[in-house]
Amino acid sequence: MTTSELTETSEDQLELFLAQASSAAGPFGAIEPSRRARMLEAIATSLNDAAELLCGIAAEETHLAPARLHGELARTCFQLELMASALDEGAYLGMVIDNADERWPTGPRPNLRRMLRPLGPVVVFAASNFPFAFGVAGGDTASALASGCPVVLKVHPGHPRLSCEIARLVRDTLDRAGAPVGTFREIYGERAGRLALLHPRIAAGAFTGSLAAGRLLFDLACSRPHPIPFFGELGSINPVFVTRRAAERRRNEIIRGFVSSFTLGAGQFCTKPGVIFLPDADSMLRELGEAVDEIAPAELLNDTIAARYEEQRTLFARHPALHQVSTRSSGARSQPFPHLLRTSMTAFLSHADDLLSECFGPTSLAVSYDDERELLAAAHRLDGQLTTTLHAEEDDAIAEPLLEILAEHAGRVVWNDWPTGVSVTWAMQHGGPYPSTTAPQTTSVGTEAIGRFLRPVTYQSVPDHLLPVSLREQTYRQLPHRLNGHLVRPEGDV
Amino acid sequence: MTTSELTETSEDQLELFLAQASSAAGPFGAIEPSRRARMLEAIATSLNDAAELLCGIAAEETHLAPARLHGELARTCFQLELMASALDEGAYLGMVIDNADERWPTGPRPNLRRMLRPLGPVVVFAASNFPFAFGVAGGDTASALASGCPVVLKVHPGHPRLSCEIARLVRDTLDRAGAPVGTFREIYGERAGRLALLHPRIAAGAFTGSLAAGRLLFDLACSRPHPIPFFGELGSINPVFVTRRAAERRRNEIIRGFVSSFTLGAGQFCTKPGVIFLPDADSMLRELGEAVDEIAPAELLNDTIAARYEEQRTLFARHPALHQVSTRSSGARSQPFPHLLRTSMTAFLSHADDLLSECFGPTSLAVSYDDERELLAAAHRLDGQLTTTLHAEEDDAIAEPLLEILAEHAGRVVWNDWPTGVSVTWAMQHGGPYPSTTAPQTTSVGTEAIGRFLRPVTYQSVPDHLLPVSLREQTYRQLPHRLNGHLVRPEGDV
Repeated sequence: MTTSELTETSEDQLELFLAQASSAAGPFGAIEPSRRARMLEAIATSLNDAAELLCGIAAEETHLAPARLHGELARTCFQLELMASALDEGAYLGMVIDNADERWPTGPRPNLRRMLRPLGPVVVFAASNFPFAFGVAGGDTASALASGCPVVLKVHPGHPRLSCEIARLVRDTLDRAGAPVGTFREIYGERAGRLALLHPRIAAGAFTGSLAAGRLLFDLACSRPHPIPFFGELGSINPVFVTRRAAERRRNEIIRGFVSSFTLGAGQFCTKPGVIFLPDADSMLRELGEAVDEIAPAELLNDTIAARYEEQRTLFARHPALHQVSTRSSGARSQPFPHLLRTSMTAFLSHADDLLSECFGPTSLAVSYDDERELLAAAHRLDGQLTTTLHAEEDDAIAEPLLEILAEHAGRVVWNDWPTGVSVTWAMQHGGPYPSTTAPQTTSVGTEAIGRFLRPVTYQSVPDHLLPVSLREQTYRQLPHRLNGHLVRPEGDV
Repeated sequence: MTTSELTETSEDQLELFLAQASSAAGPFGAIEPSRRARMLEAIATSLNDAAELLCGIAAEETHLAPARLHGELARTCFQLELMASALDEGAYLGMVIDNADERWPTGPRPNLRRMLRPLGPVVVFAASNFPFAFGVAGGDTASALASGCPVVLKVHPGHPRLSCEIARLVRDTLDRAGAPVGTFREIYGERAGRLALLHPRIAAGAFTGSLAAGRLLFDLACSRPHPIPFFGELGSINPVFVTRRAAERRRNEIIRGFVSSFTLGAGQFCTKPGVIFLPDADSMLRELGEAVDEIAPAELLNDTIAARYEEQRTLFARHPALHQVSTRSSGARSQPFPHLLRTSMTAFLSHADDLLSECFGPTSLAVSYDDERELLAAAHRLDGQLTTTLHAEEDDAIAEPLLEILAEHAGRVVWNDWPTGVSVTWAMQHGGPYPSTTAPQTTSVGTEAIGRFLRPVTYQSVPDHLLPVSLREQTYRQLPHRLNGHLVRPEGDV
């Protein structure tokens, strides 16, 4: 089966799915969090049980190696389980209780109880580069379902059979677990995706992909008669800054680490470092080039990505400010040799707009500086990034001011490590100022991702038995909450 | 001094202010929260010390009564103080720490420390109807400054002298407290406001005002090459639903409460109830009309509001589905008599789009139903609202399903009370789905408003002494945080 063999979702089908999602929203959102947690775990189990089948299909459709695919699937299952644990804990509900207070400074305060409620049906646009982790049952789907929102999943055409199979597993598992009909539906085709995003029944959109496609969808979401939140993760340059002393003391480690990071997954990671700033040293550049020349080429994910990569690579190759460091020619179009170009800091600062373009694939730039203080000027020129990285010694005087600028431009600041590899944890932030995302105040990885699909509602003087279950006194006392301004841990917690 | 006597901010001045705000952002954001808390309190003290002067000017410019103005100023000062206490507590920083863990299920986890950081300079568009609480030093300014963002305040032309005076107080107080130059600047004129919102140095916008103006600014914010968050609070109909038994048992209380709520402040509150659904009873409508006819007219805030009110009031008066309940004529244009119109539920459901238009001033609609279950249909027709209100008896069967629909459409659900009067507390939610706001996931009143101007940054493996002070081990242990997935109260807290 190829993309063209898949039937695009018709308008009638879409209307049906959206009507079902809309009907499912109330009951699915009202399911108690611990039961929804078990549903997420059941999806993880289904995926895990089908690992051989799924990784086999994925390998055929994406050219990714089996080990990588098995690892990514494990990550995807763990992600569902970690979100389940966040539901069990309950802090994600953001519960705040103010008891009535006749003597409140601004006049009698009524009883106010605040919690986060699901937004409603979400359309998720799956990505091509992580067929599992950012795919049909990836982070956006996991966090939307965790929050209590039905999901309409727009399948990425890069791995249609895999998507079909995962979608079937998710649907079946949710059905068996008693989720309302329409809690999860997959759709096919760009047109269906756009129509869904514009549909009155959709309450939010989530997307992982290119800047061009993401901006187009963001503009659609904002242009609606009733605009909706759109969580687009659009990629990034992920610059790496190396101080003179770090380059002197950890030269080989930095050379190996950088080359391995920018060529990982054939450079098709949104956290791929697209530029490295190094002290001027011909020998270091030469060694970098040699290290790149040793890397075996890997097949790109699909023809579209190969074509776009070729285009950007050619722009770089012809750019008057850029010179080749690695020595191999481009290689096969679908399986190109990794590639490193170089320029001077002066040239970089003159051409920053051209050179800070994302090249999705195994190409990166090395910018050499004379004066370390130029790193500050380069950092100031950055657009919004998912990550910024600094390799430095702890007592480098430039480290503190440089870290501050790097934090202003990114969602994650990495020290003496590499940006590829985004751990799924409580503290992870995968997001950043535009253009790295359209929603810099949110993350698409980690437990905090759940909050994207929630909004606060305050209940004023509503009798306890008529409140949502979580807000009733017997329940909220068992959960983390704020009471009359004070943070309270659940009863029985130590 | 009138609006025309005030000089509009020139482009050169604006550039200067924005450059100053941009330079102030780093140092102001880096000031430790407890010191910024003292700055907010100092502003409150300055405002309070100048209460007589400020309320005198406000009374001249807005026609609002001295008691109301003194109360509103007290609320404004309290708001600054409550936000200061949120800074002292520190939970607003959203700190999450994951220690390095070699055995993390998806591979070795690095040390990750996440906190919320200020977005950068914010442009705040002040409102006309609350010259203090949503004015120059109102909720948006208080929460932006609390978060560590410099503020460029676009003055509302409805009370220019008051704005000028408050702006001077805020600037002087911040200067004395050692805030960086440019932390607060006021600008004048619509053009300057628009230019600021489009300026690359501005990181977010906040607005309280009309749907038309708010949508225009939202569209500008989204259309930027680098879109920015825009927190627009655009008003609401704030429907009130009354069950049959509530109307029977608390008839007089409901009549008095409703009339007093929709005529409060001459109906110029964003939480004014613009429609009430009642059981069909001619006598109740007659008594409502009589109660409205007893209310003295109050002067509207300004000519623009008077003209818009006249326009919407005329549309309602001529609408074939609406009939007069109160008996007085419209009265003076700048000081109109409060006004109540009625229609049937059947007619309402046929003309809901017309009848659910906000009328900013002392006009409201009464919709009478035969069958109480029609309340569910009416609730389903609602657009996004700041508030929805239900008057019912605790054992009314319709209460639970109706509350659920009301919560789906609003930021605050009120039980047996009235929506006007928004308490400044920890649990308050003043916001709601579009069109009541452009950012349904946020509030513009209460301590949670601070979060609008923050975004998360995760530091990976950064040495303790190079982290922002709040994230260093010695500091974060004194503050509420999450550590390796577990919520932790500060050391020494009981």
